Amino acid sequence: MNSVTVSTLNQYVDQEVELKGWLYNRRGSGKLLFLQFRDGTGIVQVVVSKKEVAEEVFEAARRIGIESSITVRGKVSKDDRSPIGVEVHGSDLQVMQEVHDYPIQISEDVPNIDKLLDQRHLWVRSRVPRAILKVRSEVVQAIRDFYYERGFVLYDAPIITPASCEGVSTLFEVPYFEETAYLTQSGQLYGETGAMAFGKVVVFGPTFRAEKSKTRRHLTEFWMVEPEVAFLELDGIMDLAEQQIQYVVNRALERCKFELNELERDTSILEQVSKPFPRVHYEEAQKVLQKLKADFAESDDEELKKLSGDILKQGLGADLGAADETALGMHYKQCVCIHHYPREVKAFYMKPDETGKYALGVDVIAPEGVGEIVGGGQREDDLAALEAQIKKHNVPPESIDWYVDLRKYGSVPHGGFGMGVERCVQWITGCRHVRETIPFPRTINRTKP
Amino acid sequence: MNSVTVSTLNQYVDQEVELKGWLYNRRGSGKLLFLQFRDGTGIVQVVVSKKEVAEEVFEAARRIGIESSITVRGKVSKDDRSPIGVEVHGSDLQVMQEVHDYPIQISEDVPNIDKLLDQRHLWVRSRVPRAILKVRSEVVQAIRDFYYERGFVLYDAPIITPASCEGVSTLFEVPYFEETAYLTQSGQLYGETGAMAFGKVVVFGPTFRAEKSKTRRHLTEFWMVEPEVAFLELDGIMDLAEQQIQYVVNRALERCKFELNELERDTSILEQVSKPFPRVHYEEAQKVLQKLKADFAESDDEELKKLSGDILKQGLGADLGAADETALGMHYKQCVCIHHYPREVKAFYMKPDETGKYALGVDVIAPEGVGEIVGGGQREDDLAALEAQIKKHNVPPESIDWYVDLRKYGSVPHGGFGMGVERCVQWITGCRHVRETIPFPRTINRTKP
Repeated sequence: MNSVTVSTLNQYVDQEVELKGWLYNRRGSGKLLFLQFRDGTGIVQVVVSKKEVAEEVFEAARRIGIESSITVRGKVSKDDRSPIGVEVHGSDLQVMQEVHDYPIQISEDVPNIDKLLDQRHLWVRSRVPRAILKVRSEVVQAIRDFYYERGFVLYDAPIITPASCEGVSTLFEVPYFEETAYLTQSGQLYGETGAMAFGKVVVFGPTFRAEKSKTRRHLTEFWMVEPEVAFLELDGIMDLAEQQIQYVVNRALERCKFELNELERDTSILEQVSKPFPRVHYEEAQKVLQKLKADFAESDDEELKKLSGDILKQGLGADLGAADETALGMHYKQCVCIHHYPREVKAFYMKPDETGKYALGVDVIAPEGVGEIVGGGQREDDLAALEAQIKKHNVPPESIDWYVDLRKYGSVPHGGFGMGVERCVQWITGCRHVRETIPFPRTINRTKP
Repeated sequence: MNSVTVSTLNQYVDQEVELKGWLYNRRGSGKLLFLQFRDGTGIVQVVVSKKEVAEEVFEAARRIGIESSITVRGKVSKDDRSPIGVEVHGSDLQVMQEVHDYPIQISEDVPNIDKLLDQRHLWVRSRVPRAILKVRSEVVQAIRDFYYERGFVLYDAPIITPASCEGVSTLFEVPYFEETAYLTQSGQLYGETGAMAFGKVVVFGPTFRAEKSKTRRHLTEFWMVEPEVAFLELDGIMDLAEQQIQYVVNRALERCKFELNELERDTSILEQVSKPFPRVHYEEAQKVLQKLKADFAESDDEELKKLSGDILKQGLGADLGAADETALGMHYKQCVCIHHYPREVKAFYMKPDETGKYALGVDVIAPEGVGEIVGGGQREDDLAALEAQIKKHNVPPESIDWYVDLRKYGSVPHGGFGMGVERCVQWITGCRHVRETIPFPRTINRTKP
């Protein structure tokens, strides 16, 4: 008898099968045991009846602790109450390793998140982390398919780099033989070299920020997808970001139904993603925020009152804060593109509009409290203007002379954006903290396991 | 008139089009210029006739240097001599940026590789690097599709890690706030945690080795794909590696015809990949090598004579060296699986066979001098045996206590392998040095650009 997997069990109704995996949970009385059996592809209930199996089999099924590794044999039956439509009537059970002290208990109590993160190597076996990480896997493949189908060339940027892209305060240093190098904060500058060679490229890899902030939106190590396109200007960049987000969310809605159901995710707002994203000028967004601040202040809801206090906290004309993004998400109930931020709040490589006051940049704000998931725009393509910005921002010129070369040798208008994979997964799965969206999160206090 | 791209030009035969891109090269006389125009998606010849265009257009077409950014208009015609089947009869040319000092010259001379690597941000625009990196892009997507289609869950391992997997001598340290962490050498140990949660996972990301060796096979930063599967034993691991390599090579042969042609790659050996890979026990491989050593010693070919001297240089019973792998590749003219290496030459986590003498491991050796592209095997799944190996290999136990947990809580037989993306691309493209297979190679002397 060949082993089969839980994911294919409904092809074996009324047949005898063998399954290899682990005991996930157990209920039952002295005569009838209901084993929740998992093999990584899914969970199925295995019914073990004292009357129908050898005494030592029943005894083992009763005795072994959760996460014992086992081989189960039995007959597959239809079962309408089962989430997968079948259950197994056990005839035999062999124990590979008997476990009695599995450190994570399945319980209804509020879990201790730090303890669970210490046990992340085991915790990933549980239903909730498993569902979130399965969605992550689908999201990443969807992103790769989106760009591949559209003729983008994958262009891996280096991780070990000579220079900073997003500010020196959050750089991780790496002693590199006799030199010092840094972990990349973004592959964008490299992506620009690729856009000049291939027209359309996508950089997709891990990026690093030595963030000291302990918010639920920050990791020190996270994956970012960064398309970069020659001859693409601001409107086209917004089109691309919108299409990519729609593609990815729709794919997750289609192919991760089971997981989103496991997570009890209300997908009503996600389902709005196919509508056009509102495109809102920064100045207009400021007005909306002023109105929301006033409205929320008068609310009876304590949370809204508190949010009101945090809206526009950095003042009018400043970059948006987390509360601003949350409020805009509540207002539009859809992803919204905020464009034309004041030039001063954006990075040195951003191209200004014709007034010189605003950057030709865009952030996409996701609803449901997730905030910015995309940041991008047109890059400065004029040599003198870029050199002036480099000077103004105190970027060491010798570290990015190669980048400046792109403006010397056939400069063209171009742009792109970066989307953080974890924030995107956080939104789709509705999980509270971004650390749950990556197998082994890295934060200021955590490099282990 | 909308801009079109070179890649779609054959849909516009006998139509007027506009193209945006760069001057790649130019030939011609005083009356007729042949511009090689590139836009990232391809290269097309644009014919500019003095009689047919405005004087200033002809003058610009004659004057501008290579890599000037330009907009070209003209009529598309069929042309059987063109590699893309069409050429453009230019009617107008606008210069976006005129360039006269592009630092890379197209010439038939032997290029200075170090100078070219210093200009890597520009060099990627040239035909050969462009073709190699396009193959890389296809290879990576093929790998991702292979695993996705087979139900593997993508499981990103952390880059910043607390411990060594492949030996402390090649670790890059990262000061991490108040602690010290390390750049990952392999995601395998993390992949094993995923196999216990999902059954089948694939880790795919950058890995790092502080290699001081300056061979044409080594980079300090390279991408590795690492599938890991619960209940998979040595034969199954060889099956998986064979299937994956066949899938990837066949996909490149199908979809990268243009690029392999640009690279003048003789694909006759690559086309043999669909045949079964010979599976050769290590002891048998030693005998083959002894015979090859003797045969080559008697050859009139100086290179073979030299190779003979390097075969089995580390002695019988040792790990295979580069010359051994080259010789095996020449002998089998196909990928070959060498399995059951002596336990001593393999890593601490390898499971031994029943004799205790050999590891249940396999390396896949690619032909044509490329050498090992896959290394893998069954992992030690017995708690006591693993702990003994950890002690013997002086692995700090506190750094991998979490890994040992996998043998305490439902241990099962499992295994997988790692394939280096760059070596695979090196083989497919036939390029001499692995540094050409990644956009921005990192070696002992190079972190820039």
